[in-house]
Amino acid sequence: MSELTIWTLDWVPKGPRGFVRDLRLRWACEEAGLAYTVKTVPFDDRATNHLDRQAFGQVPYLDDGAVKMFESGAALLYLAGKSEMLMPSDPVEAAETLQWTIAALNSIEMVSVPWWFLDMTGNENKYLTGWLHQRLDHLERIFGERQWLVGGRFTLADLIMADVLRIPAVRSFGERPATEAYVVRMTARPAFKKAHADQMALFEAGDAKRAG
Amino acid sequence: MSELTIWTLDWVPKGPRGFVRDLRLRWACEEAGLAYTVKTVPFDDRATNHLDRQAFGQVPYLDDGAVKMFESGAALLYLAGKSEMLMPSDPVEAAETLQWTIAALNSIEMVSVPWWFLDMTGNENKYLTGWLHQRLDHLERIFGERQWLVGGRFTLADLIMADVLRIPAVRSFGERPATEAYVVRMTARPAFKKAHADQMALFEAGDAKRAG
Repeated sequence: MSELTIWTLDWVPKGPRGFVRDLRLRWACEEAGLAYTVKTVPFDDRATNHLDRQAFGQVPYLDDGAVKMFESGAALLYLAGKSEMLMPSDPVEAAETLQWTIAALNSIEMVSVPWWFLDMTGNENKYLTGWLHQRLDHLERIFGERQWLVGGRFTLADLIMADVLRIPAVRSFGERPATEAYVVRMTARPAFKKAHADQMALFEAGDAKRAG
Repeated sequence: MSELTIWTLDWVPKGPRGFVRDLRLRWACEEAGLAYTVKTVPFDDRATNHLDRQAFGQVPYLDDGAVKMFESGAALLYLAGKSEMLMPSDPVEAAETLQWTIAALNSIEMVSVPWWFLDMTGNENKYLTGWLHQRLDHLERIFGERQWLVGGRFTLADLIMADVLRIPAVRSFGERPATEAYVVRMTARPAFKKAHADQMALFEAGDAKRAG
């Protein structure tokens, strides 16, 4: 059996630490009990030093023997195919897990990431702000009704949705107590904490190497 | 065998006609030879009249017997599970198809849709504009090297990528001849033309009903 390899950067500045998307893949492997190693490409020249593996010059990407893929959302769905824990085998619940996974990527991040990007650069835009409020208000209604997105238990849908919602700027954007409780609950999971600590440790080791 | 039902609106204004996302699902069914019917919810009060089926008040959504799901990207991946034509059975090609499908939704649309939204409302923002140029330039390099995204033939990856790139504002955003040739090639497919014509006919019938 080939071992899973998650590729990320060898170092990033303090700001994005704990939020680089290799964390999603680490978290999924930890939840599912899948063995994996983490390898790195250099932060310097990152825009072009791995275009043969990631078409947009980003991280993470994943190796599993002959399978080599990028896009964290795609790699998560691929990993979920190895684990009933992440992706229910019941066809109705599987479809709902897929639905909410794509909702996190294409209905929430499609608004929250550009909003966050403009917010960070001091370019807040009222149209994006209104759109983000609307989307998050719909989620608040959902989280007011249930603890988990699908099937009364943790699935990949919760992993990706919580990872999208835990971005500090998004998390503090309005008062949404049910959503906040959901994020707290998901990020209290041991698998999340392990993935987070391991990413932080990798980038701290990178500090030492760059200083040395 | 249950019949697939694609749900959309009964009418939209002229602007979005030909671009409402039920078209993606129609296109996929036409390519794969999957039988389907189209049903509608009213355009009026659309923000709240089907929240029990689509959490954000949007269309499309899909029924397949007990399976009921929304998010066009998720519904496409679900439909692709029924068709080797859309999703290769080879594991390496399947992973690449998944990768490029998510790339369309989470690396391209995440930039192009908010950019388009701000552009339409006269709020062009130089940060989003620069980001979109960067992403589309990477794709231009890819399309300069190959005719199809995966495995030397049409897959779901091409369907969704072409649907994302054919938005007029995105299509006319800079000179990218390989990308333009790709969009022309994909939208010349009989399955796309059928899906497009059927959507246009539905909304034209809606005109008559609203006038009546």
